[in-house]
Amino acid sequence: MFIIGELINGMYNNIGKAIKEKDKDIIQKCALAQINAGADALDINCGPASRQPHLDIQWLVETIQEVTDKPLVLDSSKPEVIEAGLKVIKNKVIINSTTADSEKLEKLVPLAKQYQGKLIALTTSTKGIPQNKEQRLELAAQIVAYCAEVGFNLLDLYLDPVVLPVNVAQAQQKDILESIHEFKIISEPSPKTILGLSNVSQGTKVRSLINRTFLVMAVALGLDAAILDPLDKELMDAVITAELILNKQIYCDSYLEAYRKK
Amino acid sequence: MFIIGELINGMYNNIGKAIKEKDKDIIQKCALAQINAGADALDINCGPASRQPHLDIQWLVETIQEVTDKPLVLDSSKPEVIEAGLKVIKNKVIINSTTADSEKLEKLVPLAKQYQGKLIALTTSTKGIPQNKEQRLELAAQIVAYCAEVGFNLLDLYLDPVVLPVNVAQAQQKDILESIHEFKIISEPSPKTILGLSNVSQGTKVRSLINRTFLVMAVALGLDAAILDPLDKELMDAVITAELILNKQIYCDSYLEAYRKK
Repeated sequence: MFIIGELINGMYNNIGKAIKEKDKDIIQKCALAQINAGADALDINCGPASRQPHLDIQWLVETIQEVTDKPLVLDSSKPEVIEAGLKVIKNKVIINSTTADSEKLEKLVPLAKQYQGKLIALTTSTKGIPQNKEQRLELAAQIVAYCAEVGFNLLDLYLDPVVLPVNVAQAQQKDILESIHEFKIISEPSPKTILGLSNVSQGTKVRSLINRTFLVMAVALGLDAAILDPLDKELMDAVITAELILNKQIYCDSYLEAYRKK
Repeated sequence: MFIIGELINGMYNNIGKAIKEKDKDIIQKCALAQINAGADALDINCGPASRQPHLDIQWLVETIQEVTDKPLVLDSSKPEVIEAGLKVIKNKVIINSTTADSEKLEKLVPLAKQYQGKLIALTTSTKGIPQNKEQRLELAAQIVAYCAEVGFNLLDLYLDPVVLPVNVAQAQQKDILESIHEFKIISEPSPKTILGLSNVSQGTKVRSLINRTFLVMAVALGLDAAILDPLDKELMDAVITAELILNKQIYCDSYLEAYRKK
């Protein structure tokens, strides 16, 4: 599984403060802690309080590139903020995210091509968040069709079924999980699949348990990547074990330690 | 999920000793502890050391029926031992297990019908344990065909793909999990699916983690029942949460406690 660390996000108090005060040390430590815990890439989001997101994302990208060459995930609902981040990118890049709306696809797919990056696409649109599996599939098909049409490599496309909190959308969780499986059969080659995990447990009392249980279920259904908190050791143990069961890690008695050392 | 407690098994030292010494108290406490932890039924196995399994299984059944009316799962590879247990059964009963071999099917399917019981069928035969998904499906189809032919209700049939330890059969785990999904589409109505869970972690160093991760993956693929250790609290938390995500438990902040109280 491709693990994207979620912690560099201005909505977290320590990161929001560090962005405001341009405190590189906090950001760089958070980046390295996530990588040491097993993150393959780092999500970068200025957060809702940023008044200069164009400048803030550039500062974050440059600050993080000083300490790692891992891929960076430029996370904003505003294409122009992502574009600003791209201007200073040196590492490999993942754009997070487009939706199924033409306006966003027409802006972000060419940018992903231009910067030889990958692209995360939420199966949602200005019409709202899908309410069932069929609506998710329809939006996914629109996104895949557009990418195929303009020659964007489907192996670089990550479809996200949009995870909703279990305490407000319990009846939708099964559809969300099944979407992961069904997205894979939309096209040949298959697009990849991704989740923004933590939203599933928003507002619940046992967040880590719900997160890791949902993630393991998603892995069983073929999930390729997840944006999550890699410092949650039990979550990482669960995903490493799920990969072991799917024969994607070689078994040894100390397979958890072996994974972390590599 | 239908949870079958696995702890009344003569291979465990305390139970083996209690069977030998006819110590009802140990057995009854073990039965009640499993039920209090969430078991819907109790597996009963005299263990390999029993010299009089016909008498031992009868004593176990009678001892446990004194304290609970939960369904009992008569577990033996010898049909005649199961038949002995059936003679004293008062609770609902599940026969564990037949294989795809005609000799066993012809003996155990009629017994399950006669006692209005359910039947667990391992997708294995005297030719050996299946080595891939196709062999599992072929054996499952033979079992389903026989049951359909003699009018055994397929809703009372639990197919078991035969779980192997991850440290010796790592490449087979994905096939085992996928079998759970595919068994459901063999017939209409679908047979049910079951796992003897603990075998997956046999000989490993982190048994509980591997058990609960494998179980959650199996639940995601449609598993109906499992034979497991209900006293493993983390395992039970994981399965309750997986059921919550599939909308089979109603969400409340204290859903774990709510499940245990019901």
